[in-house]
Formats: sequence, C-alpha cells, structure tokens
Amino acid sequence: MDFCDYFPIWDKLTKEEQEKLTACVSRRSVKKGTILHDGFGDCVGLLVIRTGQLRAYIFSPEGREVTLYRLFERDICLFSASCMMQNVQFEITIEAEKDSEVWVIPPNLYKQLVNESIAVSNYTNQLMASRFSEIMWLIEQIMWKSFDKRLASFLLEESLLDGTNVLQITHEKIANHMGTAREVVTRMLRYFQNEGMVRLTRGAVEITDSRKLEELRDA
Amino acid sequence: MDFCDYFPIWDKLTKEEQEKLTACVSRRSVKKGTILHDGFGDCVGLLVIRTGQLRAYIFSPEGREVTLYRLFERDICLFSASCMMQNVQFEITIEAEKDSEVWVIPPNLYKQLVNESIAVSNYTNQLMASRFSEIMWLIEQIMWKSFDKRLASFLLEESLLDGTNVLQITHEKIANHMGTAREVVTRMLRYFQNEGMVRLTRGAVEITDSRKLEELRDA
Repeated sequence: MDFCDYFPIWDKLTKEEQEKLTACVSRRSVKKGTILHDGFGDCVGLLVIRTGQLRAYIFSPEGREVTLYRLFERDICLFSASCMMQNVQFEITIEAEKDSEVWVIPPNLYKQLVNESIAVSNYTNQLMASRFSEIMWLIEQIMWKSFDKRLASFLLEESLLDGTNVLQITHEKIANHMGTAREVVTRMLRYFQNEGMVRLTRGAVEITDSRKLEELRDA
Repeated sequence: MDFCDYFPIWDKLTKEEQEKLTACVSRRSVKKGTILHDGFGDCVGLLVIRTGQLRAYIFSPEGREVTLYRLFERDICLFSASCMMQNVQFEITIEAEKDSEVWVIPPNLYKQLVNESIAVSNYTNQLMASRFSEIMWLIEQIMWKSFDKRLASFLLEESLLDGTNVLQITHEKIANHMGTAREVVTRMLRYFQNEGMVRLTRGAVEITDSRKLEELRDA
C-alpha cells in the first residue's frame, strides 16, 4: 500500500499513529457520478484522492447547483468528515466527477488524530484555509465578474482539465456548475459562437478560438 | 486584566502559555471606522473583541464592497493574523463598525501557540469553520435569493443589531454591504416604501412594517 506517499504529513506522525492509520484506512473505487458525501446526512470520513477527480457543490431548495471547487489527485477531501468538526454549519455534496480511487480515513480515527497530534490539527487548518481560499475566489467571481467572463473562464478551465478543445458537456451541466439557468448558458454560448470563439454541436462545445476566449476572460 | 475570561480555551493552556499570553497581549481602543486589518498588507495578529463590533469585507478592483461577516463581543478575529496561516490566499479588510475595544495577540506568539498547543490549533480550526459557515451562508444568499429578499433580510438584521427601527444608514452604505450599486438599493427601497414596509428620510431608513418585511424575507 502506498497510502503514506499520498498523505503529506505521514512523516510527522508517531509510529503508533502510522500503524493505526495503516490498519484503518480503506481503499475505495467509485464510478463517475457516484455521490460520496451528501450534506449532513452522512459522514464517510476524510478522503485522500489516489486517482480521479471529485467535485464539491451545493444546491438550492429548487435544485439549482453551483460548483464550489474540485479535488484532484493527492488532494484531501475534508468536509466529508464534517460531522467530526465543530462549527461546520453548511451542507455540501461531493461527487466523483471521473472514475476515482480514494482512501477513506474513518471519521472516528480522524477525530482521534486531530485531538492528539498537532501535525494533524495544523494540517487540518491548512486544508480548511485552502478550501476557504477557493470559496473566496468563487465569491469574487460571482460578485464582480460578469457572466460572459465567468463562462469563458469555465470553458477554458474545463478544456485544460480534460486536455481537449471539444468539451463533452451539455448546457444543463454547465448551468449546474455555475448556479444559473440553462437558458442563460445557451444564450451566452450562442453569442460566443457568433463571435467565433466556440462551435456548438449536440452535447458538446468546441473551443475554436481559445485566444479570443482568454482575452474575454482577462478583459 | 480580564483577558482570560474572553479567551475560551484559557483553561486548556499550560501555565507557561498563560503567562506568555498575559505578558504579550495588548489592549487597544479603536474609533468607529478604523481599519484594523487591510489585506495582505499587514498582520496585526489575533483580535479578541472586548466590546464593539467589527466588519469583515472585500472589495472589487473598482472599489465595490461586500460585507462577509461581522464580529461581536467575545468573537475572535482570525484573519487579521492570516500572514501566520498557510494557504490563506485571499485578502479581506477588517474595520471597526462601532467604537471597539480589542485585545491583540501578536502574530508570532499566536504562531508559536498553534505549533505547540493542540488546544489552540483545534480552536483555530473551529474559528475557521465558523467563518467558513458564514461565507457559505453568504454564497447561498447571493446565488439563490433574489435581491428584494436579501435587502429585507439586511434591514431586519441591522434593526436587530442597532436595537431600533430607524436605521441611520445611507443607500450608498447599504450598497457597500451588499456588493451592489447605490441605484439598485434606492430603487428597491422605494418599492419597499410604496409597499408600506419602510419610510425613507434623509440619511435614514425607518422600518414601518417589520412583519411584512419578515414575510418577504421568508417567502
């Protein structure tokens, strides 16, 4: 098992703590689309991502979604253990956005480690500060950036993540990521198409002029 | 000095740590409007609020503001020590919203405590989780709530905080709190006035029908 390579503070743990982790950590493979954590309803524990990609999001009473952040290889998903953390008063959902392999640190073990190891407690602070930074970035996007820039930014990021200019994504899905309605996305994408920045086909958005899209994003 | 009464984990510190704090903590009186912390630019340390009220906010490149959260008596302001925290990649500004008295824990001492005391480290986690929860609440407000409900909610909260139905606040100030333009606020307040929920006078907004305002907020 190579868990220790993926857990950044492994060397700061005592031998006893390392043994506990080795004994209790389990590996789990999940298919794309699997919900790994669903608000206050469950408490799976800390997830250490070996391969794949997770997405954290919230949704409104009407079912509208907005993506908060994503987690990639070697990232650690903290809020799937939120039941073990005091003062966490919000619900988020975590889904596998690609087929993924994760290690699961059981919530009780995690709580025990936080209470006995300064390294774990301080590392938890760092993780939370990272997520906090991502959320603050999102607020700035929502508050200050117009929707055309946000959409340009989203398409470019997706293209980078997927390593292709042809994004296999529906307008509905994009709307879910951005917390808006499908119609708003469709209208803006058509505008982008008219400007020669993208080409729209069934179930896909092809970036045809990434330079122009970048200029829009950074304008 | 009654600092120990205001520092919730005082009893969990060692005698040595308590002595260090007693020796290094300073008390500071600030006038309403004083900027206590200004982004990455400075690092005043942890602020423990004895009396008064602080406001945390961000602003856009164009100078538009949005209030993130407020801190009251016995709250602890964490991000004024953000230079000491890893992975904090956002800038916020902290101002005294009322005349306030705070204790300042110097950043170096705080860092030292976090690295040697599990109690301090875990408490930092709790503080961050609290602020995180407030930010998540704000995102939900911005994303899912229409502006009329947000404004109703803001007026009611202000009224509660100030203990009066006559809010001495300009439309400009309200706009700053909510990250929008003054015109948008003025338009909505006039609508509220037409509906009999508020009365507008120079430099003040009087809530004349709080029940109706609450109904709007909760609708």
